[in-house]
Amino acid sequence: MDFPKKLKEKIVEIVKKTMKIGKDDPRKIWHAFKVGLSLTLISLFYYYRPLYDGFGQSAIWAVLTVVVVFEFTAGATLSKCLNRGFATLTAGALGVGAKYFADLFGKEGEPIVLGILVFTLGALGTFTRFFPHMKRRYDYGILIFVLTFSMVTVSGYRVDKILELAHQRLSTILIGAATCMIVSLIVCPVWAGEDLHKLVYTHLEKLANFLEGFGSEYFIFSENDEIVKASNEGFLGAYKTVLNSKATEEALANFAWWEPGHGSFRLRHPWKQYLKIGVLARECACHLQALSGYFNSKPQVPSEFQKKIEEACTKMCIESSKVLKELAFSIKTMTQPSSSAAEIHLRHSKAAVDDFKSILAATETLLLSNKLDLLEIFPAITVASVLIDVINCIDKIFESVEDLSVQAHFKKAKNKEFSSSSPEKPPPQHQLLHRGIVKPVVDVDDVDSGGDFVAIEICSGGAALAGKAEVNPAVVKK
Amino acid sequence: MDFPKKLKEKIVEIVKKTMKIGKDDPRKIWHAFKVGLSLTLISLFYYYRPLYDGFGQSAIWAVLTVVVVFEFTAGATLSKCLNRGFATLTAGALGVGAKYFADLFGKEGEPIVLGILVFTLGALGTFTRFFPHMKRRYDYGILIFVLTFSMVTVSGYRVDKILELAHQRLSTILIGAATCMIVSLIVCPVWAGEDLHKLVYTHLEKLANFLEGFGSEYFIFSENDEIVKASNEGFLGAYKTVLNSKATEEALANFAWWEPGHGSFRLRHPWKQYLKIGVLARECACHLQALSGYFNSKPQVPSEFQKKIEEACTKMCIESSKVLKELAFSIKTMTQPSSSAAEIHLRHSKAAVDDFKSILAATETLLLSNKLDLLEIFPAITVASVLIDVINCIDKIFESVEDLSVQAHFKKAKNKEFSSSSPEKPPPQHQLLHRGIVKPVVDVDDVDSGGDFVAIEICSGGAALAGKAEVNPAVVKK
Repeated sequence: MDFPKKLKEKIVEIVKKTMKIGKDDPRKIWHAFKVGLSLTLISLFYYYRPLYDGFGQSAIWAVLTVVVVFEFTAGATLSKCLNRGFATLTAGALGVGAKYFADLFGKEGEPIVLGILVFTLGALGTFTRFFPHMKRRYDYGILIFVLTFSMVTVSGYRVDKILELAHQRLSTILIGAATCMIVSLIVCPVWAGEDLHKLVYTHLEKLANFLEGFGSEYFIFSENDEIVKASNEGFLGAYKTVLNSKATEEALANFAWWEPGHGSFRLRHPWKQYLKIGVLARECACHLQALSGYFNSKPQVPSEFQKKIEEACTKMCIESSKVLKELAFSIKTMTQPSSSAAEIHLRHSKAAVDDFKSILAATETLLLSNKLDLLEIFPAITVASVLIDVINCIDKIFESVEDLSVQAHFKKAKNKEFSSSSPEKPPPQHQLLHRGIVKPVVDVDDVDSGGDFVAIEICSGGAALAGKAEVNPAVVKK
Repeated sequence: MDFPKKLKEKIVEIVKKTMKIGKDDPRKIWHAFKVGLSLTLISLFYYYRPLYDGFGQSAIWAVLTVVVVFEFTAGATLSKCLNRGFATLTAGALGVGAKYFADLFGKEGEPIVLGILVFTLGALGTFTRFFPHMKRRYDYGILIFVLTFSMVTVSGYRVDKILELAHQRLSTILIGAATCMIVSLIVCPVWAGEDLHKLVYTHLEKLANFLEGFGSEYFIFSENDEIVKASNEGFLGAYKTVLNSKATEEALANFAWWEPGHGSFRLRHPWKQYLKIGVLARECACHLQALSGYFNSKPQVPSEFQKKIEEACTKMCIESSKVLKELAFSIKTMTQPSSSAAEIHLRHSKAAVDDFKSILAATETLLLSNKLDLLEIFPAITVASVLIDVINCIDKIFESVEDLSVQAHFKKAKNKEFSSSSPEKPPPQHQLLHRGIVKPVVDVDDVDSGGDFVAIEICSGGAALAGKAEVNPAVVKK
């Protein structure tokens, strides 16, 4: 009685999961469609008599090739196709040679010679796959090399028409590989390079969102902190995906290496530079992890000292977040970061660090008034210190993105069209900064005037001190 | 003229690389040997007439299976073999069914029905591979399922003896897979589970080495700091491999799931718990990355305040390092951490945190004597704060290792045989702590008496203050 109900639940669950995967990335549905299409195309070799007569039973290798070789990204598919093609070609030739060589030893000696050859090449090939450079790029090729060589030499012992066998295998594999490449490159292609590009700049955006959220929350004390914390779980967790992205980024960069030029990416796009930015982004995410720990143990009541450094620290967060957003935007649009507002914000964030340090240095008043308790200011000082590390790290990211922009020939931005000023695409911070303290100011004031920053600083600081006071953009504009 | 020289250089380079890989992990050479052996065994099917007569040309599938299925670890090989075997079985049965079903539609309708079936199953199967759970465990199985189904149905259109074809393919694949499994499990097996086990405890050791090195270096001020820094690059860099270990750990855990019980690992060993420890180790490594940043910008001259907190901070480092070492040792030997010295050291490190906090709280003297410059104490305070985070993290690691010890039924340690007291295996810190300040004391005193810690603390602190003064273990013993 219970079984049909459970089955129904299971089916509903699977359908929901499928819908979710399809919705998150419709290219996955396309990919499944493309594999089905290639398989059907290839099976025409069997159904259509004239084609079948040319290849016979060997046509099955084409089917096998399609299933094994078709990968999600175009780069991965190309890499496998080319590896398979070249490996089959060379190993086939070598295998035929080995067969004729073994023939010299007579009917008795042949299997022994063949056995030794297969063992040697199998072992050598397998060991070669441990070389990091080979593994990264030619792993599949070596596998197919060993496979083809073994198959040709071993079956050559029984089959007389070994040349024909090798030739049929090669041509069917080439047909299968060509079908895969064409379908993969033409029907809604998934570019690994584009994915890497997107991954790197969304990671920067995630870091920026964290910093923005942290800056607007940590130094503000309100009664409903619990609610705020709950609503912030999104941005607090997003940096975690950055932390463990190394394997994905490297795989994508490897696949991207195989891809032809497409869109704004040329054939020799500096994919390695993306990996360097990725390393720095992970370093930055590491610091954010430390910050998120402090966020949870945020003191209930602000100390005197905390109020003093609040302005500088908030500025550090907000400005460094803006640097990251500008950098992400300049990668996204492939414009030079030096022509964006990133540099200005970076300077501002460094100025905030100096502000903070001068507050620290000028503690005499606190000392005299005996208001200073080191234990109490301990968390705030640590947070500030981590923020300084973050800014140093962002400095390095800035340089790295600049290197990328030079290597990849990013274009100059026209009319200073900064990310935050483009009205048609509201940046994601709108959804995030639910208190709307800083954003309205930035939209109107900061970007147009470029260097006119004091107004914002006072404004955001003031608003922060006043709790949840909503600043009307129109008022600020005046 | 230049070519032979370059070729020679290249060959020498390749030989050196090969030697290095073989030396680092001799199991890789064994693996290559094993693949060669399996290939040679399988090719006997061709050379030996009675065996060949049974299978004919289909025997080539056995060769193919061996090359494709043989992986470095036993778990990966088993996973691929079982996936391949079951997928071939079910897909073969389904394929034969599909062929008879398509027969019902007559000679005209058959290719259309077959085409639709192949497309549908190909697309569905490909999409299924995107489900995270399926991808993790049955990715290869689905691939082979689609492959076999397509091959059987497509070639069924031309071959009349489809049942025989499916049967031959299945039995040759099973023979190939069985050969791989037997060779992989019997000849010098490489267990993914054992690798994971080893990886996790060496990661803890690496973290411990960093903390030990940091503790004995950061708070010591000597003239030849540059030399010290250079010699420390080893331990300063080791934690980095921990940071990016997620992918490796998860792959190993997946493979380990397939492995039968071996050595001290049972069939259902809690591999998932190792991943939990891994997550915490990475969190800890994140903090260490922050610390290593401060190590490079270490102040030349210690401030008054720094001298004050030095003792507590050094103790935090050394004690937390010992906790990690004990935990690593208890994982390594599969003994319960609660019966090791880990708990004692954890308590000591927490006591050091309290010491530090009470120093911070008692700043009145500093305030009155006006010796306190917040800007100057800033780096030291930050380092201490990160150390506190590290200890909190280690606390979590301790709990996690305890969970593991319960789930995996770790045995109780006999006679309190702690890692640091076992004389036959000198722990790696010997090579590391080149100043030999702390280690000799630990060997003789600390472990046996268990709680008698004051002597060491003073000693290491004193030695640290005195610069590079070498403490004779014999003297300390008295």
